[in-house]
Amino acid sequence: MGLLIKGGKIVNADASVIADVYCEDGVIKQIGTDLDVPSDAEVVDAAGKLVMPGGIDPHTHMQLPFMGTVASEDFYTGTAAALAGGTTMIIDFVIPDPQQPLMEAYETWMGWASRSVADYSFHVAVTWWDDSVYEDMGKLVNEHGVNSFKHFMAYKNAIMAEDETLVNSFNRCLELGAMPTVHAENGELVYHLQKKLLAAGLTGPEAHPLSRPTEVEGEAANRAIRIAQSLGVPLYLVHVSCQEAVDEIARARHEGQRVYGEVLAGHLELDDSVYRNEDWGAAAAHVMSPPFRPKKHQAVLWSALQGGTLQTTATDHCCFCAEQKAAGKDDFTKIPNGTAGVEDRLMILWDSGVNQGRLTENEFVSVASTNAAKIFNIYPRKGCVAVGSDADLVIWDANKEHLISAKTHHQNIDFNIFEGRTVKGAPDTTISQGKVVYANGELNVVEGAGNYVQRPAFPTIFDAVQKYNELHQPKGVER
Amino acid sequence: MGLLIKGGKIVNADASVIADVYCEDGVIKQIGTDLDVPSDAEVVDAAGKLVMPGGIDPHTHMQLPFMGTVASEDFYTGTAAALAGGTTMIIDFVIPDPQQPLMEAYETWMGWASRSVADYSFHVAVTWWDDSVYEDMGKLVNEHGVNSFKHFMAYKNAIMAEDETLVNSFNRCLELGAMPTVHAENGELVYHLQKKLLAAGLTGPEAHPLSRPTEVEGEAANRAIRIAQSLGVPLYLVHVSCQEAVDEIARARHEGQRVYGEVLAGHLELDDSVYRNEDWGAAAAHVMSPPFRPKKHQAVLWSALQGGTLQTTATDHCCFCAEQKAAGKDDFTKIPNGTAGVEDRLMILWDSGVNQGRLTENEFVSVASTNAAKIFNIYPRKGCVAVGSDADLVIWDANKEHLISAKTHHQNIDFNIFEGRTVKGAPDTTISQGKVVYANGELNVVEGAGNYVQRPAFPTIFDAVQKYNELHQPKGVER
Amino acid sequence: MGLLIKGGKIVNADASVIADVYCEDGVIKQIGTDLDVPSDAEVVDAAGKLVMPGGIDPHTHMQLPFMGTVASEDFYTGTAAALAGGTTMIIDFVIPDPQQPLMEAYETWMGWASRSVADYSFHVAVTWWDDSVYEDMGKLVNEHGVNSFKHFMAYKNAIMAEDETLVNSFNRCLELGAMPTVHAENGELVYHLQKKLLAAGLTGPEAHPLSRPTEVEGEAANRAIRIAQSLGVPLYLVHVSCQEAVDEIARARHEGQRVYGEVLAGHLELDDSVYRNEDWGAAAAHVMSPPFRPKKHQAVLWSALQGGTLQTTATDHCCFCAEQKAAGKDDFTKIPNGTAGVEDRLMILWDSGVNQGRLTENEFVSVASTNAAKIFNIYPRKGCVAVGSDADLVIWDANKEHLISAKTHHQNIDFNIFEGRTVKGAPDTTISQGKVVYANGELNVVEGAGNYVQRPAFPTIFDAVQKYNELHQPKGVER
Amino acid sequence: MGLLIKGGKIVNADASVIADVYCEDGVIKQIGTDLDVPSDAEVVDAAGKLVMPGGIDPHTHMQLPFMGTVASEDFYTGTAAALAGGTTMIIDFVIPDPQQPLMEAYETWMGWASRSVADYSFHVAVTWWDDSVYEDMGKLVNEHGVNSFKHFMAYKNAIMAEDETLVNSFNRCLELGAMPTVHAENGELVYHLQKKLLAAGLTGPEAHPLSRPTEVEGEAANRAIRIAQSLGVPLYLVHVSCQEAVDEIARARHEGQRVYGEVLAGHLELDDSVYRNEDWGAAAAHVMSPPFRPKKHQAVLWSALQGGTLQTTATDHCCFCAEQKAAGKDDFTKIPNGTAGVEDRLMILWDSGVNQGRLTENEFVSVASTNAAKIFNIYPRKGCVAVGSDADLVIWDANKEHLISAKTHHQNIDFNIFEGRTVKGAPDTTISQGKVVYANGELNVVEGAGNYVQRPAFPTIFDAVQKYNELHQPKGVER
Repeated sequence: MGLLIKGGKIVNADASVIADVYCEDGVIKQIGTDLDVPSDAEVVDAAGKLVMPGGIDPHTHMQLPFMGTVASEDFYTGTAAALAGGTTMIIDFVIPDPQQPLMEAYETWMGWASRSVADYSFHVAVTWWDDSVYEDMGKLVNEHGVNSFKHFMAYKNAIMAEDETLVNSFNRCLELGAMPTVHAENGELVYHLQKKLLAAGLTGPEAHPLSRPTEVEGEAANRAIRIAQSLGVPLYLVHVSCQEAVDEIARARHEGQRVYGEVLAGHLELDDSVYRNEDWGAAAAHVMSPPFRPKKHQAVLWSALQGGTLQTTATDHCCFCAEQKAAGKDDFTKIPNGTAGVEDRLMILWDSGVNQGRLTENEFVSVASTNAAKIFNIYPRKGCVAVGSDADLVIWDANKEHLISAKTHHQNIDFNIFEGRTVKGAPDTTISQGKVVYANGELNVVEGAGNYVQRPAFPTIFDAVQKYNELHQPKGVER
Repeated sequence: MGLLIKGGKIVNADASVIADVYCEDGVIKQIGTDLDVPSDAEVVDAAGKLVMPGGIDPHTHMQLPFMGTVASEDFYTGTAAALAGGTTMIIDFVIPDPQQPLMEAYETWMGWASRSVADYSFHVAVTWWDDSVYEDMGKLVNEHGVNSFKHFMAYKNAIMAEDETLVNSFNRCLELGAMPTVHAENGELVYHLQKKLLAAGLTGPEAHPLSRPTEVEGEAANRAIRIAQSLGVPLYLVHVSCQEAVDEIARARHEGQRVYGEVLAGHLELDDSVYRNEDWGAAAAHVMSPPFRPKKHQAVLWSALQGGTLQTTATDHCCFCAEQKAAGKDDFTKIPNGTAGVEDRLMILWDSGVNQGRLTENEFVSVASTNAAKIFNIYPRKGCVAVGSDADLVIWDANKEHLISAKTHHQNIDFNIFEGRTVKGAPDTTISQGKVVYANGELNVVEGAGNYVQRPAFPTIFDAVQKYNELHQPKGVER
Repeated sequence: MGLLIKGGKIVNADASVIADVYCEDGVIKQIGTDLDVPSDAEVVDAAGKLVMPGGIDPHTHMQLPFMGTVASEDFYTGTAAALAGGTTMIIDFVIPDPQQPLMEAYETWMGWASRSVADYSFHVAVTWWDDSVYEDMGKLVNEHGVNSFKHFMAYKNAIMAEDETLVNSFNRCLELGAMPTVHAENGELVYHLQKKLLAAGLTGPEAHPLSRPTEVEGEAANRAIRIAQSLGVPLYLVHVSCQEAVDEIARARHEGQRVYGEVLAGHLELDDSVYRNEDWGAAAAHVMSPPFRPKKHQAVLWSALQGGTLQTTATDHCCFCAEQKAAGKDDFTKIPNGTAGVEDRLMILWDSGVNQGRLTENEFVSVASTNAAKIFNIYPRKGCVAVGSDADLVIWDANKEHLISAKTHHQNIDFNIFEGRTVKGAPDTTISQGKVVYANGELNVVEGAGNYVQRPAFPTIFDAVQKYNELHQPKGVER
Repeated sequence: MGLLIKGGKIVNADASVIADVYCEDGVIKQIGTDLDVPSDAEVVDAAGKLVMPGGIDPHTHMQLPFMGTVASEDFYTGTAAALAGGTTMIIDFVIPDPQQPLMEAYETWMGWASRSVADYSFHVAVTWWDDSVYEDMGKLVNEHGVNSFKHFMAYKNAIMAEDETLVNSFNRCLELGAMPTVHAENGELVYHLQKKLLAAGLTGPEAHPLSRPTEVEGEAANRAIRIAQSLGVPLYLVHVSCQEAVDEIARARHEGQRVYGEVLAGHLELDDSVYRNEDWGAAAAHVMSPPFRPKKHQAVLWSALQGGTLQTTATDHCCFCAEQKAAGKDDFTKIPNGTAGVEDRLMILWDSGVNQGRLTENEFVSVASTNAAKIFNIYPRKGCVAVGSDADLVIWDANKEHLISAKTHHQNIDFNIFEGRTVKGAPDTTISQGKVVYANGELNVVEGAGNYVQRPAFPTIFDAVQKYNELHQPKGVER
């Protein structure tokens, strides 16, 4: 049965227009006025509201095994919470252990994700290097629709990728037309600073940001960018959190390098005073990496998002409840790293972005959905309201007030880092695969309804980059 | 009678797709495959070619009275040449003399432009200031579809706007929701350096770039940006030509300021060695302001275009023939400033941009057409291939080779700054207002067929900016 | 009678050494151990203390007629207060009214200054332009030992220099081997913002910083630097107060331009919250231009001083008492601009600089004295402890605690912007012209004892700059 | 017997003055006019010439075992060549093999250096890490006068220090008050690019610069700076060769970080076209790392030297003759890396610096001698002409023309990278330890006359830095 969305203002990244949208078979079939639709089509009234592409969260970790425990939010609950917040697709991460075959890890995660209620896809992490990794990267790209690989520059003695791995993997990405991405923190420095702080008797969450100061991120951001530059490969930096990293991206982009940056809703809004909360549990609940930053960085991140230095927003959604966090009671380095937000992101972004005059409604759509779809090469299937696109939509009520709270959110975690904040602007209705899955505050989802989204290799910038590389390839000298 | 463009790859700023396009009444009516079109529709075969929005040149000066003469290219010949190059719309400039009422000048230019064969619009220059200027700006915006005002920071003792005028006019622009634009060169320094060079016996064209070094542009760019910042108004810089100015724009954008920059095809490609050509006529033919720059700046401009620091490309098309240029035979400051290019721009941009791996085809469309349409608020009417948009299109043959030459170009000038260059990628067919106006190397245009395009005030960024300004408006202190 | 300073650690800009210093006839005659000195020499015990060149304050305004009143501190009281704080020389400003001959103003100020108790010199302001100004500048340099000229880019309708004046005067400075200096604020913007704020009903001191935001200074700093660059002349910026201006200086220096910057003790320490003090008088007492800045700028200034982007410290000492400030009770633009500090500067700089690990003791001497002497070309006569140098010294007690207060300071003003601060590190003894003029908390000064210090033109950087300019002078093209 | 230098202009870093200099026992005893000296003192007439502190070359590699061969210049010939060029002291490098005890290597180099004819000192390289390295660093600092440690970020599989070593060693440097220094190139990238180029059939010297592009240096420079920043330790970068690295240093210094940079005479003057010389031998003779750079970088380096971003000049003097270079005939990665210059540096620096108006004579002294003495904490013993300083002097003839050539130089190498250049400004006489060792074009040196110079730890900036670190040390949170 078809679905007709009537009278809303369609807001895309490029422009807005008032028109109806008709969806069928999970796809947008018509856009216009006076559409000719089947008489039995379900009708949703969007008058006075905005019809936007559903949010894409390109950075989540559902049921991640990490630091001795497993994230409390699984693919079922997590994608449901996403829908309640207007996000209709997530890109999660396959993270092999060092020495574990990539394909094996990929299959494991695919199994877990099969319970998803909304569409999903995977970045795959490269945590070690040998010929089999090289081979598996090819297989993942060519046979499984993976077009991006993640590299952790932090977490020494665990999943940290050394320069040798970065260089080899970035180079392989270029061959495959896949985007390398990095978590940019210098793991060696973090390790050193953690030891030093513990030795000085600083064992609580307040030491967490001190062990990962902003220069540690700036260093790694620059290193990844320079490696990408010398290899001629594009690059995407996840969860950019501070001026140092933003400045590196800006410089590189300004010099014509193809570098992209993502910012988390949390980093846009919170500062590092959260770690000095006298309530240990509250402080620990905010432990994630990179940490929340001193106050001045939030303005920098907003400006960078506004000015185009950063392109996407995400959450790094990775839930650990109080009892899990308690593992680090006597040693902050043992507190599982992660915070939630997949449900809250769009509301926070609208309230602090659009309501504050920092973003237009079209820019909001760009950074909430469209840019991620473009960078990860699923546009215009995802990320826009257009005939032929997937019918993943959110009908946004710009006047709706909503109180964010762990008591009422759908996320499977006992804490909300935006607790108590009332935002103006929230999802009225969410549509996934052409069906209403959230309306009137109620979710109506089906376990396993979510589809795995294959993402083709070689987005157009790779063509350009490869042409450029080839033209500038060094030639020998006649002697 | 309708027009059906079959089998081409439609290239928009956001994505490309193979589909047919059906135009009628000057508008795009359908896009898709197996379209239902009238049987008498004219059919253009675009198989293997690209169907793109026609170019928009946001910076031309047809039949400009300047420096004691009048530009040789008028609105009739100029818009025709534009069409031959795939550009379907120009935005020209109304330039009142100091003390001349803006409305009077506007009417004069509207009269001249009525002979245009393609669509056109006008920026209006603010060359002086009093209450009547304030009033006329309002009238132009509210009654005549002008949404941008130009300010010359150069040309002392002629049309130069002092800081007082800049401040008042920028502020008025903010009230009206119109975009202030600037020609950024410090006129006082140019004047001083011109006198100094003449006194030292340097009277030839080689002195022209020496009288306007890059720091002179960097200064003015920064000044305009800072004024805009302190007033909270967006800003657009025309013909950005050098690193100094590019760096200022990058800084401002990175800090979240709404600043936009335009680059000319000539500045992207030529360097200042042209002024040291031993043939006086050839050297003088390149005299324009800002001048062509030392070699390193071209790479900087390309990077800035690629990285998003600059958004639009233009030509500053302003034609003076050899006998006109000769007025400055003994004094380079009397050489009429201007070069041509409205016909060549897209070809140069494709050849050096797309063929060199600097731009994707979609980015080409952005900087050739879409971004100008967005910034000057006529998008999506112009600047995209979409149902409902104006049927101003260019069918692009990426494999067609074309020799650029004054002998064959349609521009009414006896010189071409790209003379002798063979580009790959050129217009196959140009469509204006739904009609084929250029095909098989032949123009088929009608004098006066061009329409004046009204551009509404308050593009969305003004809403955002005003909201932001208001929220940050200073409040008094209770005592 | 000679003076022997025994056992102190001599601290110069380049190094420290423990040795005795013997002074006679106002000059340092010997440095070393076991000196052979007349038996009747006065002996000062400096054991455990530091013997440093007396401070040079290159920016004061004694008894300045300004904004309808006259600064309460005159040359007699002002130089005495300076000595009490360890500062043994000031460079004040001759400020002609527009149209007033420079020589006339110079004579007036020389008359006022004859009462000084310590050495002094003058920058002369260029507030207007015609041939007589050009001539007088030459006379001042060649006959009167003036080697620096000041330009106010602010104070529209009063002493503001337009670009035309800046260009002409900077050029004249280059000819004369004299340093151009600027007060960098865009006066046109200040004027506009003042009117806007008053119109909005903001009439109190809290509106003062709002009328002169940091971008207003950044603009003017960049403009002056670019003008200097295109003319090939060195430049000195007085009272640099914010990141925007600091960044411009850093960029220029990094590109090899000869640009110098001064920072005030007040700007290093205070932020703009002082203007929101609920006590009108306290808020008004802080009104000076540029205003004190938002918090983040203080750290930027300290870093710039430490890293060499800024070279000198000063005070802009210009005293107006409460009743004078009251002139602006209903209109903040009428509050006389100025704050004190000539006595406090060294103590503030030591306490926040050396005690905080930001500056070494040698760097302290550099920024307190030596660099000013070098830039204004009176080194090594002033600014160092060396045989042959003037015996202007301060014996510094790094362990002495001192409470700064208007109740106890020697400055002729009823307010102290550092009120209540206890610093560690203060003058034990001050020596001027080889005589002890301050010791045991007591001043012992003689009206008129101060000498006018002639400053020769053409410091060495001018030779370098002129050689560089000449080698890069453009030549014509053979045709 | 004493030595009296009569009538010269003494040029120090801070100022110049005409005076006589009397030396005895290797030390400067008196400076002034009409000095009272022993009648048998040797007299050198310096009228019309400049008397400057002898050059200090803080970066040489005499008889270095490297890449399967040994540098052809040993400490005897090398220090003699230095004296012929006016350089009176070198700081060479002890470079242990990985796993070799530092003390053992130190003793080896001390043995080799005992033949030196001029004063010398050593940086010690940290090429690996364990507790014994930690211990030996302490011993070297506390017992052997070493106050600086070198870290190679390049040369993978040989002497490259990984991040773990950098972090541990930098931290140890801070404890010891010793300066960490780095060769900044990302060895992992170099290794990758070398393999790629060889695989592509590029085996000649032209591939050398392609294997080490400027971003490879920029990356490492930033990494070292960020590591130093997060540990709170000063840092010195050797042979800074490109804009990317210079920009990083400038940024860090501007933010108040204690970072210093050195530039080689070769990098200031030569560009990478030398590697495309059709004569393989000539091309190979220029192979060193970092390589000579594209043209634009030389101007950047000069500006940085002029503006204070870089402080010292050196040569990285490391000689390999044609037959040694031939080892890389079929594989550029096997060409021993190194070029000469210890004799040429001052002349190049004067001719391109002072004669071109880029440096004053005082700045010349700063970057040729004084700054190295200050940074490595042997000032004012070395690096200045002052009573009590070592009598290491060069009498400079600013008018003397000199043709640089391998045919006439004293360096033990068959090639000179400045071959054929005639400079204006050269040493007239060199004085080492108070004796004339070079005059009238003749060397008069004694094997083993050179003394090892102990350099004390904790230069004053370390005090400041440690005070700063301590004050900002994080404290825990009360819970």
